[in-house]
Amino acid sequence: MAALVNDGFLRACRGEPVNRMPVWFMRQAGRSLPEYRALKDRHTILELCRDPELAAEVTLQPVRRLGVDAAILFSDIVVPLQGMGIALDIKAGIGPVIDEPIRARADVDRLRMLEPDHDVSHVLDAIKLLRKELEIPLIGFAGAPFTLASYLIEGGPSKNHARTKALMLGDTPTWSALMEVLSESVVAYLRAQIHAGAQAVQLFDSWVGHLAPHTYEAHVMPWVRSIFDGIRDLGVPSILFGIVTGELLSLMSRSGADVIGVDWRVPLDEARRRIPPGMAVQGNLDPAVCLAPWDVVQAEATEVLARAGGRGHIFNLGHGVLPETDPHVLAELVDLVHSWKVPS
Amino acid sequence: MAALVNDGFLRACRGEPVNRMPVWFMRQAGRSLPEYRALKDRHTILELCRDPELAAEVTLQPVRRLGVDAAILFSDIVVPLQGMGIALDIKAGIGPVIDEPIRARADVDRLRMLEPDHDVSHVLDAIKLLRKELEIPLIGFAGAPFTLASYLIEGGPSKNHARTKALMLGDTPTWSALMEVLSESVVAYLRAQIHAGAQAVQLFDSWVGHLAPHTYEAHVMPWVRSIFDGIRDLGVPSILFGIVTGELLSLMSRSGADVIGVDWRVPLDEARRRIPPGMAVQGNLDPAVCLAPWDVVQAEATEVLARAGGRGHIFNLGHGVLPETDPHVLAELVDLVHSWKVPS
Repeated sequence: MAALVNDGFLRACRGEPVNRMPVWFMRQAGRSLPEYRALKDRHTILELCRDPELAAEVTLQPVRRLGVDAAILFSDIVVPLQGMGIALDIKAGIGPVIDEPIRARADVDRLRMLEPDHDVSHVLDAIKLLRKELEIPLIGFAGAPFTLASYLIEGGPSKNHARTKALMLGDTPTWSALMEVLSESVVAYLRAQIHAGAQAVQLFDSWVGHLAPHTYEAHVMPWVRSIFDGIRDLGVPSILFGIVTGELLSLMSRSGADVIGVDWRVPLDEARRRIPPGMAVQGNLDPAVCLAPWDVVQAEATEVLARAGGRGHIFNLGHGVLPETDPHVLAELVDLVHSWKVPS
Repeated sequence: MAALVNDGFLRACRGEPVNRMPVWFMRQAGRSLPEYRALKDRHTILELCRDPELAAEVTLQPVRRLGVDAAILFSDIVVPLQGMGIALDIKAGIGPVIDEPIRARADVDRLRMLEPDHDVSHVLDAIKLLRKELEIPLIGFAGAPFTLASYLIEGGPSKNHARTKALMLGDTPTWSALMEVLSESVVAYLRAQIHAGAQAVQLFDSWVGHLAPHTYEAHVMPWVRSIFDGIRDLGVPSILFGIVTGELLSLMSRSGADVIGVDWRVPLDEARRRIPPGMAVQGNLDPAVCLAPWDVVQAEATEVLARAGGRGHIFNLGHGVLPETDPHVLAELVDLVHSWKVPS
């Protein structure tokens, strides 16, 4: 096992002082890197996820190239669903597609809990390989139950999540049964990742910003909280992230996560006003800014750093790296964040 | 010209007291109505928009069926772009597709201002036909310049508007030139609609919620303001609408519109705290709620009414009617809103 040379990311998650600002990028591994696209020419995404050596290699690519302060396991939020026996595929230009969407109680009753050691041992093997190499923290992750449920119910990516909401509001017992099996599976999955070596975890509730606050509070928040409650004893920092969450930040910040990930729509000083004092924030440069000339990237990134104020901030984009991003810009951005003078 | 029997909608726009709550639905004309789908089997959307008789018929369909307090002209926000000579189509399952996207200054310089009497006379004819029939106010509309620009630059609907933002941030002179020709065309278009008989107008800035507040303020808000400034002398109420605008509401409310349309993500009492006192609000039931059982619709709609507080509120959905909505539910919803006791 490699020694942890740089713990700035973990310190910032806990709100501790840092010498230089930690930074990583959501989707830092993947489509923006030519070395990833070369692998992708020969393998599907799910093949890359299923092979521990390949998943580890893809995870390491941005670490070698960008100088980030954390690695995030290369995988996909549907991997544990596939592990649970749900037939699915990730289709180019579309995203995850579920063979038999879940629409009724009988569909939910057929689901079985994830058994990580049996169902996703390849993920745990990738984590073990990575810990031998990495001198920075490794972030494990899972999709949050609402976002997973939306894929299962809609059958794929959805513009308005209408079927998901109709089931949630119209058949709450079935919804709760689905959220229960997903939440328990996510807890088992994250615990297994941590036991295998993940030093932090991020829960991606990508689509939760489609919900009104009172709907989130009634039908989603209790399950998110059950996940953070279910991993707290393992003592690793946890991050909760979604996009379009301005109205949900206050509720999300009371779900038990240590860090709230914020997209670029809410300035981080305003985000801090909606969450408990001292809680850490992650974000939030608009990924599209990285397509603009460097002087714009510089000005916008500096604005993000200034608004967050240093302490308890992990610099990141507000959502994933766009495929058309020049990785040299990301490397320069890492240098810029690292050279920013952290207020004392 | 038919006499205006019911002016509740216009009174609410102006913040005046009403005897019963006014209600209409974005996309009330269209995909949820079987009588519309019957027409759609024989005509494309652009054919329906281009034929004054057909556009008027589609506009009237929900008025006959639902008992709403306002009609909205059936058209599409790309109709004036087509009028300006831009080659485009509306493709089933995709949306507007632009033949030659605008990517550089030369593309912008080739655009010409809309001349409504010449370019979109069919729209004005439809409005004149409608005013002969309608006993409720007719709402005209246009797409806002950011949203139109996004279609023109991306070439169609976009997930992240990355090219649009890159142009806006990276080549501000070209961006401004594009916004200028679009804004001036929108002013001309709305003025012509009002002269033809539209008794209110709504500006749809559907995608503006993808922008951070400081970006909206610098690169979009001045153009939106120029539009409301450009129609103010005509004295009809104006509505500004976008989705995911929680962080933008304060800025949007200072753009010169009389009414702010709010999606379901921001409770209307919270929305009111972000805009000037007394300004009217429109919204904001989640369209997906209409797919749930009636008791859920009833509870959620009543919650919307209560939070908005009555005065200066036009009941609507938070976005367009979903195609799978049962129109009987919409009719029942109109009755529910009308029977709600307006606080005195």
